[in-house]
Amino acid sequence: MDKTTQKIRIGMVGGGQGAFIGNVHRIAMRISDGFSLDAACFSSDPQRAASSAEEIGIAAERSYPDYQTMAQVEASRQTGITAVVIVTPNHLHFPIAKCFLEHGIHVICDKPLTMTSAEASALITLSERVGKHLFVTYNYTGYPMIREARERVRRGDLGEIRIVQVEYSQDWLATAIEQSGQKQASWRTDPKQAGAAGCLGDIGVHAFNLAQFVSGMTPVKIAADLHSFVPGRVLDDHAQVFMRYASGARGSLLSSQVAVGKENHLRLQIFGDKGALDWSQEHPNQLSFASLDGATQILSRARHQISQASRDVSLIPAGHPEGYLEAFAVLYREFAKSLASPDFASLNGDAKHSATAAYHDLCFIEACIRSSSQDSTWTQLKISNT
Amino acid sequence: MDKTTQKIRIGMVGGGQGAFIGNVHRIAMRISDGFSLDAACFSSDPQRAASSAEEIGIAAERSYPDYQTMAQVEASRQTGITAVVIVTPNHLHFPIAKCFLEHGIHVICDKPLTMTSAEASALITLSERVGKHLFVTYNYTGYPMIREARERVRRGDLGEIRIVQVEYSQDWLATAIEQSGQKQASWRTDPKQAGAAGCLGDIGVHAFNLAQFVSGMTPVKIAADLHSFVPGRVLDDHAQVFMRYASGARGSLLSSQVAVGKENHLRLQIFGDKGALDWSQEHPNQLSFASLDGATQILSRARHQISQASRDVSLIPAGHPEGYLEAFAVLYREFAKSLASPDFASLNGDAKHSATAAYHDLCFIEACIRSSSQDSTWTQLKISNT
Amino acid sequence: MDKTTQKIRIGMVGGGQGAFIGNVHRIAMRISDGFSLDAACFSSDPQRAASSAEEIGIAAERSYPDYQTMAQVEASRQTGITAVVIVTPNHLHFPIAKCFLEHGIHVICDKPLTMTSAEASALITLSERVGKHLFVTYNYTGYPMIREARERVRRGDLGEIRIVQVEYSQDWLATAIEQSGQKQASWRTDPKQAGAAGCLGDIGVHAFNLAQFVSGMTPVKIAADLHSFVPGRVLDDHAQVFMRYASGARGSLLSSQVAVGKENHLRLQIFGDKGALDWSQEHPNQLSFASLDGATQILSRARHQISQASRDVSLIPAGHPEGYLEAFAVLYREFAKSLASPDFASLNGDAKHSATAAYHDLCFIEACIRSSSQDSTWTQLKISNT
Amino acid sequence: MDKTTQKIRIGMVGGGQGAFIGNVHRIAMRISDGFSLDAACFSSDPQRAASSAEEIGIAAERSYPDYQTMAQVEASRQTGITAVVIVTPNHLHFPIAKCFLEHGIHVICDKPLTMTSAEASALITLSERVGKHLFVTYNYTGYPMIREARERVRRGDLGEIRIVQVEYSQDWLATAIEQSGQKQASWRTDPKQAGAAGCLGDIGVHAFNLAQFVSGMTPVKIAADLHSFVPGRVLDDHAQVFMRYASGARGSLLSSQVAVGKENHLRLQIFGDKGALDWSQEHPNQLSFASLDGATQILSRARHQISQASRDVSLIPAGHPEGYLEAFAVLYREFAKSLASPDFASLNGDAKHSATAAYHDLCFIEACIRSSSQDSTWTQLKISNT
Repeated sequence: MDKTTQKIRIGMVGGGQGAFIGNVHRIAMRISDGFSLDAACFSSDPQRAASSAEEIGIAAERSYPDYQTMAQVEASRQTGITAVVIVTPNHLHFPIAKCFLEHGIHVICDKPLTMTSAEASALITLSERVGKHLFVTYNYTGYPMIREARERVRRGDLGEIRIVQVEYSQDWLATAIEQSGQKQASWRTDPKQAGAAGCLGDIGVHAFNLAQFVSGMTPVKIAADLHSFVPGRVLDDHAQVFMRYASGARGSLLSSQVAVGKENHLRLQIFGDKGALDWSQEHPNQLSFASLDGATQILSRARHQISQASRDVSLIPAGHPEGYLEAFAVLYREFAKSLASPDFASLNGDAKHSATAAYHDLCFIEACIRSSSQDSTWTQLKISNT
Repeated sequence: MDKTTQKIRIGMVGGGQGAFIGNVHRIAMRISDGFSLDAACFSSDPQRAASSAEEIGIAAERSYPDYQTMAQVEASRQTGITAVVIVTPNHLHFPIAKCFLEHGIHVICDKPLTMTSAEASALITLSERVGKHLFVTYNYTGYPMIREARERVRRGDLGEIRIVQVEYSQDWLATAIEQSGQKQASWRTDPKQAGAAGCLGDIGVHAFNLAQFVSGMTPVKIAADLHSFVPGRVLDDHAQVFMRYASGARGSLLSSQVAVGKENHLRLQIFGDKGALDWSQEHPNQLSFASLDGATQILSRARHQISQASRDVSLIPAGHPEGYLEAFAVLYREFAKSLASPDFASLNGDAKHSATAAYHDLCFIEACIRSSSQDSTWTQLKISNT
Repeated sequence: MDKTTQKIRIGMVGGGQGAFIGNVHRIAMRISDGFSLDAACFSSDPQRAASSAEEIGIAAERSYPDYQTMAQVEASRQTGITAVVIVTPNHLHFPIAKCFLEHGIHVICDKPLTMTSAEASALITLSERVGKHLFVTYNYTGYPMIREARERVRRGDLGEIRIVQVEYSQDWLATAIEQSGQKQASWRTDPKQAGAAGCLGDIGVHAFNLAQFVSGMTPVKIAADLHSFVPGRVLDDHAQVFMRYASGARGSLLSSQVAVGKENHLRLQIFGDKGALDWSQEHPNQLSFASLDGATQILSRARHQISQASRDVSLIPAGHPEGYLEAFAVLYREFAKSLASPDFASLNGDAKHSATAAYHDLCFIEACIRSSSQDSTWTQLKISNT
Repeated sequence: MDKTTQKIRIGMVGGGQGAFIGNVHRIAMRISDGFSLDAACFSSDPQRAASSAEEIGIAAERSYPDYQTMAQVEASRQTGITAVVIVTPNHLHFPIAKCFLEHGIHVICDKPLTMTSAEASALITLSERVGKHLFVTYNYTGYPMIREARERVRRGDLGEIRIVQVEYSQDWLATAIEQSGQKQASWRTDPKQAGAAGCLGDIGVHAFNLAQFVSGMTPVKIAADLHSFVPGRVLDDHAQVFMRYASGARGSLLSSQVAVGKENHLRLQIFGDKGALDWSQEHPNQLSFASLDGATQILSRARHQISQASRDVSLIPAGHPEGYLEAFAVLYREFAKSLASPDFASLNGDAKHSATAAYHDLCFIEACIRSSSQDSTWTQLKISNT
């Protein structure tokens, strides 16, 4: 896959100097190998776009001042980009993704896919119509022990699932740092750029997505209590959600950005009638597995009793920790693999999963906002069966 | 305090052969020293009462066939019992406690105090009228690091409390063991003996009580989703509750008896705007403390930086673990201390705390049942200001 | 076992007001039940002896000014003590134990049994001659998960043992607190009262004893490097030891009292050719078990897969932590049980184990001192086959 | 640094298809960016060399059949490689490094640098004479929290160091897998390819190197007990070493490849008279710090209280775990940085550190082998002051 001649040509929109997630995507591409970053529109500010391009090593003629031009020019180049990575603030995801899909260019989009479920649905329809991929980088799904967890659910080790308990807590917004101009905080707490949800949309949705990915289940209704603790903050910085599944299973989701002492405490527990799983993102190479009659086991990545599904996404042997970037790179490897499939229709579930799941995630966020504004009433997720 | 002549004379109702909690109370009394178990009504079955008395070492003439006789006879003895310990199934707590208080005998009652908040309120009023103690053994409050946690809340180390997150999970009811005659399971899943709540009343209320004890706050309203997973089980075996406090703080309580892999996973986290606490009952000698700008600290019982309030209830030096029985014994030491106070009215807050808190706990359970039956509507705790 | 009439009558030498371990023994007796502390010689200072006796509740006429008188008088009383507990500084263990055995009174002695292996050997011979018990309270052997560990070694779960790795580290002697009069530190750092070893004799020997108890093996030779870090301190405060076993197994023992951050970090790891164990005293209710082809298991006291041998010494159900005092109480229960055996010769291995092991421990200490003084030369343990 | 035109041109010797560490180096280069892998001699088998080159994307004319040709041709190319990475079995490191240095090409060599300390010394002398870098990739030194540990030692947070306690244990050689042809096991257990030490040379030396890196101290003498447990194995698979430092500090090193349940359990503890550190490779983003009078702190990468020295080598924010590959990439970034320095003589300590430390490591291994063969006699490290 390393051969230069076979590398997938990639463009990037957003993610210039000073951006966090743009660099993460670039490193992930390099780890996974097989990608060549050839074009970019790093910033809406031409000066910053140009200097970012120079620093990152994009040829000047392929550093574009706006994404529309980029899509048009690249689509017409013989060796134009095959796919674009969108790492802008949330509100720009939709128009950019739409534009590139319409130009026949595959889209890799950071989460959330769009601002609304309607937009997400429209993009999915568009991607199917044009026969191009729409890939959403829910990076936590790339961790090998998350794949192990999913495999164990699938093969029935947990029995029937009863309880899904998920949490994503941070503390970096425990004070009003957005008021002192911290850039990451500013756009994430601004409804115009972040959407209608704050903490819930930024990190809570990761927890929801992960629970959905591993359990294979999407709740039918939820009851939510969103709250903002920090004075002056419009969007929620703390979210508590109950979930009910069609099977009768129960769930809870806690997400906070004011939980002092928490860094990226994303933790997933699933309890079935036969077994249970427990995983934490901050120690991602282990997975705790309990069964009704046995001692709790600490499973370790690439080690004894680990399934092929998990081994397939491991880079290095057990005991040498992999981390966040390696998990991100797994998604890029899978994107490359799905591109290699001759026929869009034949895509396996995982490749299609991310956009569908991203649509569910937006339905979830919207349901939470409705529920919370109606005194935490139980509220249906409005998922259309596309 | 060891002197035989000064030992507090105790009677016990319930807790005969094969009972779990009766023996725990007896060990706790022995650890704390200063108590002499002199009379008992171990069972409503005269045969079992007598054989338990013989085994446990109660003189035959002070082993009673019923609690009414016991209260009457002991009250009239020159050296009759000073206090009675009630360790029967829940539905008997009220009549027994009432009877002994009316005979002028102090009452130590296992939790829950009664079946309803009205009964609890009535007992409190009665105990004040007759000037006798009413002590409820919420044993988890006796852990030294819980005292440390409370002290840190009190002195402001956490700042203003924002989030109270508490959980108590077990797995011993993951299957229908009550149907095969397991005694502990049978009465706990039977509404007539356990009350209207199952898991919530058995262990969830411990979590609620502990959160209240440490935070010093009682929520004003809650929204609850109670559920029973195991077919044929009438009472809840899984409970999820949101809580709101007068200050604007938010809380969540999760409690389950079907959470495979959990033994007695009682965990309390409290987040303030300056600091946060994290404690787990299964490793009770440690307390994690995080502050906004500092690394997380692992505080250890009786060790550096531990307050006098916590040291006062420690038995042995740091690094030699104390456990469940030692925490239980703390309550007995405190009961002995409060008895020594000449004047009932001068009791300090802790001694009175347990009954008041037990009343709040029942108000909480009742609110949860109302809320859950009304589709998780936000529901006020009906606490009268007695 | 509770019946007053059947309680074993106990006397205590040492352990008066302000002593740590004397109180621990008293609590342990109360937890285990079945003991009555009836006589004492709490201090060589008559004033302190008397006031301790009063506080602890010993009748004045059975509070003795010296142990010789106590042994003589109690031996001649109709209901004199059956056994004596010795909790004095180390150098007094031998003469006191000898005196009571000669008066036909069973001896329970805190570790180390004596100052020298020769003395220990002499006491064992004496105890056998007079047909009285000689019990050494190596308290860490009483932890239920240590019993589980031993059981797993015995039944072959680890295969052939290859490596024994044991550590006991503390930090309370990291500075010269003995120079400021701290009582516990003073006698422990004084060769006249503590013996020829400091840290090694105080805590290292606990580690050695525990390794021996669980593995069932005693090394044939050792190489030791003892060192004293704190200026002015005569005895070692840090010890490193290699061990070799007859089977070819290797071992290491690390013990320190200057290891900043360590409280009572006693940890035992044993590796066989099929499985391995890992246990830490500060979290004693768990035991980690690894096998060649399986995930690591976290075994929990009184829970799934726990042997009867371990359950037999558990007091309360899984998930409710037991601690140091409960482990201590196990030894008292076992002492009571061994007393109940009609014939001294029929004592099972465990009851005899403690004195034999204590003798081995002294042989080990002596070998370490010889080795360390000879530049860490490999040195035989001089164990005679009594 | 990304710019293609500025990339450092790299060649690789060894590390073809199926090799573990060659791929790790390639990923590390990609993560660190700024490198271009342009030439290689992947295997001594021409067929395998060619197919590896094709797979990895090396132009056919720059895939060499032997390293001598590669050094000669590349040295004469206008845009020949600037540096070579050596990832062959150990015994080939010396001749290959010598050859490339002599052709004026910088050398990056996997550990151990050579088979003997004499060879290492010769290479260092040669590298200084020709003015080319000699970089040894002791990858564990690249972990950000190891940099934090070193910084804390340097600035005196621990006070004077008393104890260095280091361990590296694995279990993959617990059985004789080398006899069934497992390639990694075969060469590592073969003295001709691995050198005179087995486990000690393969992983024990990592532990030694890391202790040296963080503490800033090299022991003056050691006493070692090397052992081979698995029948038929010539080289040690278990090593226990005492260490003594010039300052009076004591150390111990345990290393095993038969420790069932251990994956890559590299753990470093350093105790000073004021503070102590504890770090484990399997959870590399945390560092435990204890001080004499304070609670133990759990420090987290890129988080509160973390030094600039550590932040400089962090890629992503706190709470998103970095792992083994990121630590490896740190070394490549530092190599790139040191190349950018105009003058070889001006290299900072870190850049020179690795070769000097690698020389010390070989002196250590040689001393251990001498000591172990002489019944664990205390043995000087023969370090010449080059």
